[in-house]
Amino acid sequence: MARRKDSGADERAGRFGYEGLDRVIHEKARLGILTSLASNEGGLLFNDLKALCRLTDGNLSRHLAVLSEAELVEIWKGKRGSRQQTLYRLTASGRKRFADYIGVLESVVADAHREMKKGTRSRPLWGWSPA
Amino acid sequence: MARRKDSGADERAGRFGYEGLDRVIHEKARLGILTSLASNEGGLLFNDLKALCRLTDGNLSRHLAVLSEAELVEIWKGKRGSRQQTLYRLTASGRKRFADYIGVLESVVADAHREMKKGTRSRPLWGWSPA
Repeated sequence: MARRKDSGADERAGRFGYEGLDRVIHEKARLGILTSLASNEGGLLFNDLKALCRLTDGNLSRHLAVLSEAELVEIWKGKRGSRQQTLYRLTASGRKRFADYIGVLESVVADAHREMKKGTRSRPLWGWSPA
Repeated sequence: MARRKDSGADERAGRFGYEGLDRVIHEKARLGILTSLASNEGGLLFNDLKALCRLTDGNLSRHLAVLSEAELVEIWKGKRGSRQQTLYRLTASGRKRFADYIGVLESVVADAHREMKKGTRSRPLWGWSPA
């Protein structure tokens, strides 16, 4: 296929592939859970996380299982008073992977700002018709 | 359930729910497609997008259909030389929604940096045992 000169696609192959956006972390609810856990070094109880992330029990459980399976989050059981409780906290490697992910997210934001600045949608499209 | 005093979950309810992270835009591949289109006001051809985002034909088609359905992207048909070609570009409202989304993403990055700074994972967990 003929290349359009102005897109510069050849030189920028894969430029916006964002390989570093780990899908386990990128999911919206899990992003909130990880951000909540990032500042609570001692971990958070299920209900704390539920309130911070505004998730249902079922959704929160499901996402915590994915995060635990991926070894981003570790689960601890303990007693608080007479109640058996469960505590969730970031693993050391989870903290590292989350920081790496946030670095990629920063580059997404920087890319978007730069690309939006370059493009303004005013030019008419001569010779093309809506599909 | 008893609240842990140090989590501050009560005052920060929903703080990390990230309602503004539009799921249509947040998907990793679509994020790349929208960033690519943001600077190309005249639109991009299918193969340009494919190269920029390193996607297969099938995946790219599928994501463009979702973006078009959500009225973020518009599709134009035209001839370049003797070839029938298809051009994709951001709609005006798509550009606006993408900019809004990037604003939310910036707050995610700022939250994460702040929360990671607050938390360092050194404190031992007395009285809890791994699940």
